[in-house]
Amino acid sequence: MGSRPALSQRARQMPSSPIRRLAPHAVEARRAGKTVYPLNIGQPDIPTPKEVLDRLRSFSERNVAYGPSQGLPEFLEALRDYYRRAGIPAAVEDIFVTTGGSEAIFFVLSAVGDPGDEAIVFEPFYTNYNGFAALAGVRLVPVTTRAEDGYHLPDRRAVEAKIGPRTRAILVCSPNNPTGTVYTDAEMEMLASIARDRGLFLVCDEVYREFAYDGRRQRSVLTLEGIEDRAVMVDSLSKRISVCGIRIGNIVCRNRDLMAAVLKFGQARLCPPTLGQYAACALGDVPPSYIEGVIREYQRRRDVVFEALSGAPGVLVRKPEGAFYLCARLPIDDAERFSIFLLRDFSAGGETVMLAPADGFYATPGLGKDEVRIAYVLEEKKLARAMEILGAALLAYPGRAVGALPAR
Amino acid sequence: MGSRPALSQRARQMPSSPIRRLAPHAVEARRAGKTVYPLNIGQPDIPTPKEVLDRLRSFSERNVAYGPSQGLPEFLEALRDYYRRAGIPAAVEDIFVTTGGSEAIFFVLSAVGDPGDEAIVFEPFYTNYNGFAALAGVRLVPVTTRAEDGYHLPDRRAVEAKIGPRTRAILVCSPNNPTGTVYTDAEMEMLASIARDRGLFLVCDEVYREFAYDGRRQRSVLTLEGIEDRAVMVDSLSKRISVCGIRIGNIVCRNRDLMAAVLKFGQARLCPPTLGQYAACALGDVPPSYIEGVIREYQRRRDVVFEALSGAPGVLVRKPEGAFYLCARLPIDDAERFSIFLLRDFSAGGETVMLAPADGFYATPGLGKDEVRIAYVLEEKKLARAMEILGAALLAYPGRAVGALPAR
Repeated sequence: MGSRPALSQRARQMPSSPIRRLAPHAVEARRAGKTVYPLNIGQPDIPTPKEVLDRLRSFSERNVAYGPSQGLPEFLEALRDYYRRAGIPAAVEDIFVTTGGSEAIFFVLSAVGDPGDEAIVFEPFYTNYNGFAALAGVRLVPVTTRAEDGYHLPDRRAVEAKIGPRTRAILVCSPNNPTGTVYTDAEMEMLASIARDRGLFLVCDEVYREFAYDGRRQRSVLTLEGIEDRAVMVDSLSKRISVCGIRIGNIVCRNRDLMAAVLKFGQARLCPPTLGQYAACALGDVPPSYIEGVIREYQRRRDVVFEALSGAPGVLVRKPEGAFYLCARLPIDDAERFSIFLLRDFSAGGETVMLAPADGFYATPGLGKDEVRIAYVLEEKKLARAMEILGAALLAYPGRAVGALPAR
Repeated sequence: MGSRPALSQRARQMPSSPIRRLAPHAVEARRAGKTVYPLNIGQPDIPTPKEVLDRLRSFSERNVAYGPSQGLPEFLEALRDYYRRAGIPAAVEDIFVTTGGSEAIFFVLSAVGDPGDEAIVFEPFYTNYNGFAALAGVRLVPVTTRAEDGYHLPDRRAVEAKIGPRTRAILVCSPNNPTGTVYTDAEMEMLASIARDRGLFLVCDEVYREFAYDGRRQRSVLTLEGIEDRAVMVDSLSKRISVCGIRIGNIVCRNRDLMAAVLKFGQARLCPPTLGQYAACALGDVPPSYIEGVIREYQRRRDVVFEALSGAPGVLVRKPEGAFYLCARLPIDDAERFSIFLLRDFSAGGETVMLAPADGFYATPGLGKDEVRIAYVLEEKKLARAMEILGAALLAYPGRAVGALPAR
């Protein structure tokens, strides 16, 4: 009898999602009768636009068939029109529909890098980049951004210092998940200049495009000059119209070779989900007031969370500029332990909150141990209550760090 | 200015799908006014069960939210009940829902192998395994099956001869795409015995489970004894209830470590499509008469295609036992050229057919050059007409091979 077969190294080394790995504790907490405010995951409570749900319910084909690997033609046109309205240059042939922004990231990493190649990321970064990089065998090389700087980018030298012979791309997310930072024109132009000078792809995850507050505007990678052949946008409808579960994202890129490679990857998985695309063809029917209302709502929610946290003793937080996340440094020894404490050992009147420990959003070992990501995806009243609970939990937590903030 | 960034090796080496790569020629043919009978792709024309479409149209959530990474609980239960009815042992915790059978294959290959590791496959095999293997960096090592044997497996020695120090798994598909072969109990038990003795995973793609003709029954990998820790089933609803576009498949496996690895891969992409799962929760409401009718229909279609082909001069074909494909050796110099000829240069009364050249279903260079895969997914009358057209095209094709079948 042969030995029990072993799993691959990548299976063993693959990180668990810090957003989802505490889910069993939440299940337990709810089973024990606790109310859990989920601040760990970017699942908005905002309704999907009526136009999109109506389109879905009108599905009248006789079967749910495969579509083209690059996306349904009608949906590709709806996306092109959306980008035109957003002032972003994109022809139908520059667009490739993916199964969520997730697949877009994976395809792009696989197209620009081989196992052992590297991509520069700015930590803290969207933790699931780790998962796709591990699957693709591409090493993420972190440039650290700091809470004290509002998680804005360090200077050009600090970025270039991380570029080596195997660097293939710079991967950036703006508005940023998990920090809420919206990079300035100058920051985006600096990255474009580096990509131009050093022969790198510049990949920008823009799924939170509209979520920019206080009058800010996100700068799309596709509007940067001189990098038309190396600018790659990763996008998704999930947050924009509150349809996370349809799993529809897309890539936009004007480099024909990259798009041809992505098509080959896409043919292997046949096509992105037909139903989600079918419903999302109604994108152009959604009135501008929908997203304007959503943005106003999130800006208010941000204010609730920021006000509560910025007044809390020992908490370091900067006002987020976009998306619907923030990272906060808490006066605790270990965010994972604290997050489990919240679910397992703590309750305030039968209620508690679920956080995402931020260490999984860093690639540098040891960083983020005292940080959490908070997704402000609940309505204001619930968020205010969740912040009260968090404050009480910080006082009750046995692993509280006493005294000043630790030096960084 | 840095040089234009190059794509990854895997992007350049990734094969184009032989099923989909001729699509531009079909678009041209249709633009020129030709009717094209699509026999290249396994897109059934069978209606989706009413119960499933009705469930979809009743979607009444306020938004389309993320579900759990492993699948919606209600859908997992529907799958467990389906397997119970099929006599296949599977608890809810043994099931992981994926974005189509495609993702199931990719996750399993990634979990059992690292770049440079190997999996044994039986060629001709479902061509998209190539795509996932290329993405995962896993090498597919082919064991050739022959048209003359009805594409049944060679003896144990021929399989074991291909096992090396980096072999991690045997990947098999039954009923088979592209050959239509249903492996016998003895064949499946031989593979189980090899997996047991040599410490390999045995992965079986069972998406055509019900599609077995002339009273045959598919033998599930999960019913084989002594390999409970290494039997992995890949499955999909696409063909079973004619919902290819919902992109819902699943893995079934009782190896907890493998399932934990798959969960980590799955967390990175958040969740499989919510809408498809929502609709497919109605699986248990679909009466048995639905699938019985579908099987009868396909058996008749098979007969139409087989009768036509087996009488054609110079064509070598064996009666398919299952699925809805067959491989046929044609008296031609090159199946790719012939397939393009059909779309670009040939018409019979304004009509032509689209085939999938079979070389892309082989890993051994040079094999399959004179073979095509035919998906009999159209109604009988259309199939009969398509076979007439194919016969006329074989006579008109300038690259016709004259005389006897080439030796193999």
